[in-house]
Amino acid sequence: MYEGPVQNLVDELGRLPGIGPKSAQRIAFHLLRLPAEDAKRLAKAIVEAKERVSWCRRCYNIAEGEQCRFCRDDTRDATLICVVEDARDIVAVERTREFRGLYHVLGGAISPIEGVGPEQLRIRELLGRLADEGVKEVILATNPNIEGEATAMYLARLLQPLGLRVTRIASGLPVGGDLEYADEITLGRAFEGRREVGA
Amino acid sequence: MYEGPVQNLVDELGRLPGIGPKSAQRIAFHLLRLPAEDAKRLAKAIVEAKERVSWCRRCYNIAEGEQCRFCRDDTRDATLICVVEDARDIVAVERTREFRGLYHVLGGAISPIEGVGPEQLRIRELLGRLADEGVKEVILATNPNIEGEATAMYLARLLQPLGLRVTRIASGLPVGGDLEYADEITLGRAFEGRREVGA
Repeated sequence: MYEGPVQNLVDELGRLPGIGPKSAQRIAFHLLRLPAEDAKRLAKAIVEAKERVSWCRRCYNIAEGEQCRFCRDDTRDATLICVVEDARDIVAVERTREFRGLYHVLGGAISPIEGVGPEQLRIRELLGRLADEGVKEVILATNPNIEGEATAMYLARLLQPLGLRVTRIASGLPVGGDLEYADEITLGRAFEGRREVGA
Repeated sequence: MYEGPVQNLVDELGRLPGIGPKSAQRIAFHLLRLPAEDAKRLAKAIVEAKERVSWCRRCYNIAEGEQCRFCRDDTRDATLICVVEDARDIVAVERTREFRGLYHVLGGAISPIEGVGPEQLRIRELLGRLADEGVKEVILATNPNIEGEATAMYLARLLQPLGLRVTRIASGLPVGGDLEYADEITLGRAFEGRREVGA
């Protein structure tokens, strides 16, 4: 459709997640209109990220070097592991400033439809850490959807016999939300997870 | 939020049109998970497009070299110029296989709100071509919205005294559309532009 290098750029952009053919065209033409140094800064950022960033050998978060910044940080509580599906979830947890332990990235969730079973996730690696690192509590912070719940259930059954505390993050109404508009499953969970109001 | 090179990549991606912070994160992590050669292919496509592609000196379409593939093509009818707002619009016109003339890219449309007047568009360059190239008809194919219509009106008034045919692409119901759901302005245009049914 376009001249070679432009078509090539549109094709490459169209391979990115969430970028359809129209967006790919729009972004390609935006890049063509940019000053060369601005466009090349993006190219450089891609190359640098690929060269300098890899995965933490301990928790599978993104890392510069062998271990990620949380695993390298001695002030974090190593007896507490928060299990997440994806490295991006770590940023969401960090934003809460509620958690000072370490992480473990599973690399997905159990999903029979997508052919993902427990053996595709980094569960063996998690068990290895539990054996080595004196962990006291594992917080299951997989997504509150079908796959995430199934994964949490599976891990809970696997970990409870090991004699450590296994917890699941709470489901309920989002803060600032509205009872009237809550779906029945979320509201049901909010009732299920109700707590005594302190005196 | 992230390690240096990752944050840098997220920031650069977030500068692209239509890419919000969440999409930028998603794309960045997708790139981090890709094999290095796949990610670098995107970086290379950006650099190559910037190095090899520029703008046609005659019509301001994208071009490898001095002139774009339409301006270089002797089989195209050089007496017919289709005026579009953006180089991407050319692809849409080409897909129709209805047009065999040349193009002229204005680089936008008249929009007082965005501070774009006729002097910001490549109208002087269009007038230069009309003087030099023996053009017989100018087809105004700016967008059928307020800015595009204003630009077409402006150009029509400017070009009609030059003694050439000036036409505007038709507005009306999209083929496959439904009268019931048509907005009143489009339907009004469809009535206005009605044509005798051939015998």
